[in-house]
Amino acid sequence: MEELLALSLGDPAGIGPELIGEAWAQRSSAALPPFVVTGGAQVLAQAARTRGIDLPVRRVADVQEAAAVFATALPVLGDLDATYHPGQPDEAGARLALQSLEQATALVLSGAASALVTGPIAKAELAKVGFGFPGQTEFVADACGVAAQDAVMMLAGPSLKTVPLTVHCALAQVPGRITADLILRRCRVVAAALQRDFGIEKPRLAIAGLNPHAGENGRMGREEIEIIAPAIARLQAEGIAATGPHPADTLFAPHARGTYDVAIAMYHDQALVPLKTLDFDEGVNMTLGLPIIRTSPDHGTAFDIAGKGIARPASLIAAIRMAAQAAAQRAKWA
Amino acid sequence: MEELLALSLGDPAGIGPELIGEAWAQRSSAALPPFVVTGGAQVLAQAARTRGIDLPVRRVADVQEAAAVFATALPVLGDLDATYHPGQPDEAGARLALQSLEQATALVLSGAASALVTGPIAKAELAKVGFGFPGQTEFVADACGVAAQDAVMMLAGPSLKTVPLTVHCALAQVPGRITADLILRRCRVVAAALQRDFGIEKPRLAIAGLNPHAGENGRMGREEIEIIAPAIARLQAEGIAATGPHPADTLFAPHARGTYDVAIAMYHDQALVPLKTLDFDEGVNMTLGLPIIRTSPDHGTAFDIAGKGIARPASLIAAIRMAAQAAAQRAKWA
Repeated sequence: MEELLALSLGDPAGIGPELIGEAWAQRSSAALPPFVVTGGAQVLAQAARTRGIDLPVRRVADVQEAAAVFATALPVLGDLDATYHPGQPDEAGARLALQSLEQATALVLSGAASALVTGPIAKAELAKVGFGFPGQTEFVADACGVAAQDAVMMLAGPSLKTVPLTVHCALAQVPGRITADLILRRCRVVAAALQRDFGIEKPRLAIAGLNPHAGENGRMGREEIEIIAPAIARLQAEGIAATGPHPADTLFAPHARGTYDVAIAMYHDQALVPLKTLDFDEGVNMTLGLPIIRTSPDHGTAFDIAGKGIARPASLIAAIRMAAQAAAQRAKWA
Repeated sequence: MEELLALSLGDPAGIGPELIGEAWAQRSSAALPPFVVTGGAQVLAQAARTRGIDLPVRRVADVQEAAAVFATALPVLGDLDATYHPGQPDEAGARLALQSLEQATALVLSGAASALVTGPIAKAELAKVGFGFPGQTEFVADACGVAAQDAVMMLAGPSLKTVPLTVHCALAQVPGRITADLILRRCRVVAAALQRDFGIEKPRLAIAGLNPHAGENGRMGREEIEIIAPAIARLQAEGIAATGPHPADTLFAPHARGTYDVAIAMYHDQALVPLKTLDFDEGVNMTLGLPIIRTSPDHGTAFDIAGKGIARPASLIAAIRMAAQAAAQRAKWA
């Protein structure tokens, strides 16, 4: 398969379209592989103009044409489109975002593209046009026939890869959601994915404790003793290089970061605080455990700054690059 | 009052004594003010030798002699001492650590020294010799006649100052401990201390949310709506420059850190993860809200590396420097 990534547009009123134009403009300096966007030709051209980019957009009817076009124009597959109203999401835009996501996913599932990079959508807007998933990750998992709980979100930047075991729930609910089963299922997926998509022969998983100082032998919470440590022992017995439970406060310090390939965090902020502290502009959200490769920039639609020319493309560029590297890695196994 | 800091030895079997010798050796290059150690002359000399430092130690009977001695020798007040057994804590050592802490605190309370820097102790060892406090912070607060809940721990490094509102409790207990009263009491102490000890005219307090994305309007927990936001409004009404509740994940990103003077965190790891990620070697623990100035290095006794010459002095040096700066700042008000 020729290397070609499929990019979904994201919400056309957000910063997704302008950043795609910016990424295309930087394709040489950033050494990006060819990519095709599913729909939004007019939106993309108009959004690029707000950043002062004269973006040549070329509609292609067949994805086979895209790679050849990429050197001289941004290839856009199909005629789906909308009017560009940055910062003003509407139903037409949400429909375009959803169809673009569906088409890009289908391209990768069919093998016509080697990896999927999804643009940022607004869940509330998408829900209005019938999108029944909590987010794009669950949509893509469903399209792949993978149970949502086995599609694992990893946040990755130049300094750190980290996986939060629980994500969008109140902090008070976190302790009740940490189970040995959750740790085992997710860590198996993570270990296999780092092998397959990153070529790490024996990935080292550093698993954080839940409580301060990882509970200090049960003095501050017993989850480490009763749940986390036994799960780690089980993972080790399976041959997975898991360690911990590690006190979270020292796990992300400079000297500690070199001792593992991925940090497994118990909750959202335990993973996201160090990631955004270290790699704010370059964080990538990658879904592990899918038959396809899927990444996305680690930012939202940012309606408040859309069309103002100030959104930074580093995260999207990193997402494109990571998707391409994972695709190249998988191609080695094929 | 002549500028002179009082240093307590810490547990003689830990890394405290060797780091005091190292700090004295670096007194010129690090531009450190004169300090006196309460007890442990022999321990200090032996510990320094393990690092290859030929440390001249001078016992002084009167604290008035200490500042003059400091240029050519490390002044040690009194005859308290023990044998140096690095890595092997015992009761004699714990007694020395406790007496050293008591004497150093008394020196500062009496006005004979301008600030207190406490060396690391082992709580379990100290408990064996009758120390009835959870830690040194509570001991010092009690010695000052301040209620423990009004002695506020701040962690400070070159990149970040942060205060965790709850500290050593299980994560499951955190939501129940976050009350408006806690936020108000602690933030008033913090605002007053940043003014008095750091000379910040109107300190900006950025208060984190408890839940991911600060709860996202109640979608993930209601503590922000019911407790944190009303407390912030109350602080603002009192004239304190408090903002929030801020999503914790972006609060410590590079561009965010310049927008506040101190980040108020809801729990241990929300504060300690970014602090140790950014400023691992140079973190200082400062107790706010006391009539005296008290800092300490942000590390423990580290019995496992004591006497091996590898413990890093940056945190102690930063603690000495921060104590001296705060003392100079308070002197301006006097």
